[in-house]
Amino acid sequence: MRKMDYTKLLMIPGPTMVPNTVLTSMANPIIGHRTADYGELLEDTTEKMKKVFMTKNDTYLITGSGTSVMDMAISNTVDKGDKVLTIVNGNFGDRFYKIAKIYAGDGDNLIKLENEWGDSAEPEKVKEILEAHPDIKVVTVVHNETSTGVKNPIEEIGNVVKDYDALYIVDTVSSLGGDYVAVDKFNIDICVTGSQKCIAAPPGMAALCVSEKAWKVINETETKSFYLDVKTYKKKYDDKKETPFTPSVTLTYAMNEALDIVLNEGLENRYKRHEKLAKATIAGFEAMGLELFAKERARSVTVTSVKYPEGIVDKEFRGIMTNKYGISLAGGQAHLGGKIFRMGHMGEAKEYHILGTLAAIEMAFNELGIDATGGVDAAKKVLNSEI
Amino acid sequence: MRKMDYTKLLMIPGPTMVPNTVLTSMANPIIGHRTADYGELLEDTTEKMKKVFMTKNDTYLITGSGTSVMDMAISNTVDKGDKVLTIVNGNFGDRFYKIAKIYAGDGDNLIKLENEWGDSAEPEKVKEILEAHPDIKVVTVVHNETSTGVKNPIEEIGNVVKDYDALYIVDTVSSLGGDYVAVDKFNIDICVTGSQKCIAAPPGMAALCVSEKAWKVINETETKSFYLDVKTYKKKYDDKKETPFTPSVTLTYAMNEALDIVLNEGLENRYKRHEKLAKATIAGFEAMGLELFAKERARSVTVTSVKYPEGIVDKEFRGIMTNKYGISLAGGQAHLGGKIFRMGHMGEAKEYHILGTLAAIEMAFNELGIDATGGVDAAKKVLNSEI
Repeated sequence: MRKMDYTKLLMIPGPTMVPNTVLTSMANPIIGHRTADYGELLEDTTEKMKKVFMTKNDTYLITGSGTSVMDMAISNTVDKGDKVLTIVNGNFGDRFYKIAKIYAGDGDNLIKLENEWGDSAEPEKVKEILEAHPDIKVVTVVHNETSTGVKNPIEEIGNVVKDYDALYIVDTVSSLGGDYVAVDKFNIDICVTGSQKCIAAPPGMAALCVSEKAWKVINETETKSFYLDVKTYKKKYDDKKETPFTPSVTLTYAMNEALDIVLNEGLENRYKRHEKLAKATIAGFEAMGLELFAKERARSVTVTSVKYPEGIVDKEFRGIMTNKYGISLAGGQAHLGGKIFRMGHMGEAKEYHILGTLAAIEMAFNELGIDATGGVDAAKKVLNSEI
Repeated sequence: MRKMDYTKLLMIPGPTMVPNTVLTSMANPIIGHRTADYGELLEDTTEKMKKVFMTKNDTYLITGSGTSVMDMAISNTVDKGDKVLTIVNGNFGDRFYKIAKIYAGDGDNLIKLENEWGDSAEPEKVKEILEAHPDIKVVTVVHNETSTGVKNPIEEIGNVVKDYDALYIVDTVSSLGGDYVAVDKFNIDICVTGSQKCIAAPPGMAALCVSEKAWKVINETETKSFYLDVKTYKKKYDDKKETPFTPSVTLTYAMNEALDIVLNEGLENRYKRHEKLAKATIAGFEAMGLELFAKERARSVTVTSVKYPEGIVDKEFRGIMTNKYGISLAGGQAHLGGKIFRMGHMGEAKEYHILGTLAAIEMAFNELGIDATGGVDAAKKVLNSEI
């Protein structure tokens, strides 16, 4: 095989670092996917997934990227001409909009509630739109905007949407297992997530859960995809605890192992750890005199976005970080390219990852002529405190 | 993680046994998918994939099951009302028909050329239909029907289709890397395959290649899927050697390693090995007095289907095989359930796998009161001969 560099510390907002026990689970031999053994593994993994979603709803594992389940959530519920409300304050909210365009068509029926990218969505505005358009069929929102480090108030929006006929679709790709998500309590009809963020499994597997209310809509919606038709996943799972098409057996091993780690730590503990690491990271950047991209009320606990100080070139800064210090950070997406960088602190991230990364960022900025100090001390203070 | 039984010999028609070096490649840490390092891995893997496809056409790796690329081949080329000819002589040919139904609609425009399931498709009949319907937009065929052990004459059918406007779409999921497929020489416009059969990588990654003629059609076809829109794969690959959505980094490691093994053995050698193992298997079954499901002219080199002798219950026979001898065989699909069993002999299968399996099958049949002997000797004779 091609020689690869596996040494980089992944402080990007996904894929995140995968524990060795998860990695090595994938070195196990392949088993047949139509065997009782795989059926039991699939059921076990699905049940663990439900615990992390905090749902009693039907849950499915899909071989595909996180986008495959975002696609499923819309293509299985929306027909041409249906009214769709997409809440957009980042690249992934916009992805839901683009997906809706394909399946609902690009007319007046497609309503976009746009926020400033650094701010969170407002539940009252969602309510206003639903009042004005009671025939909206689905509402989409992204819990954690990986592109901007913004967190949306999905519980509050759920409290609004539940009083209307609309289905509530939530993307928790970069929050589930790290930030508090309770699908049933939040009245989420379809919740989608990926393997490679807070769950800390490798990328390539995705999951979604589907409420009773959503099934009613799905069963009346035209089938628009063969591979991503959730009805076939339900049928095969109900009949035989199987998937309709050959699943990634290997990634099922990894998901099962990664979900064990999540559940063994405990969801509450995991939320607290993510919150504390986020607060330490934010305090660190603020002490360095850097400006955060996300407004204070809107900050994610899994990824922090930072505006570049005047004169810093993204490529140079991240080049030093990766080549000199062995740490991968992410740049800005879409119109934010070159203007911000993003640091992930999710999944299996620990104190030393945060502290080491902040210290290296100080050194890189100093090398580029920016006086950035005090970040590590500020982060230590947060980590020492009770939050 | 849940305790699993990894000890079964996989003589099913996929997923197949994966070499240890491929399995352990997946225990390597995850790297960022937007890095130059991943870009080089993706390009390297794609170039190796092209060699196996024997094509100069654009080739893409997709995170998904084999069905995901079957879906792409149709959804990217066919609009509602378009005329589609699907050649059906097994479950996977029928899958193309079902996919076409979704995207082309279920009217007179959907033409099914049905063969007996144990026989291969006839190029002359394809010609007749194309003569009668010169406005057919795509023709689909499955090279190797995993469901029946039948091989279709894709080179001959390609020679027919090339003289018409129709695109030629071929599923080589269970043949590529084991049986002779030369995409450019066979005039295949879209060829699709999976990771988990003759290539002997784990399931979860798929590939397709797209001819110039196909691109013209794709660019004039309505976008019908977000996740499976091949245009976005092209754009991102051309721009940056990236995938539009987070790919399975792990399965890319595995594919790269598995393709190295395929290319190091050499395609010619690999075809010969598969042919010889198939002949030995067939000779073995015939010597045992068993009747094969596929007609002689139609037999696959990667999977052999065998009719059960009177009085044998599928579950009992395969139960003995798996529980007593540790060998997984497959049963029949669709209406063939209980009537046939299928033995895969592809990917990394070696002489001892074939000989050991045939011997165990003799023992299992004997245990069930069927006199089945001489299979191993007949297989040995074939393996000793020059073919």
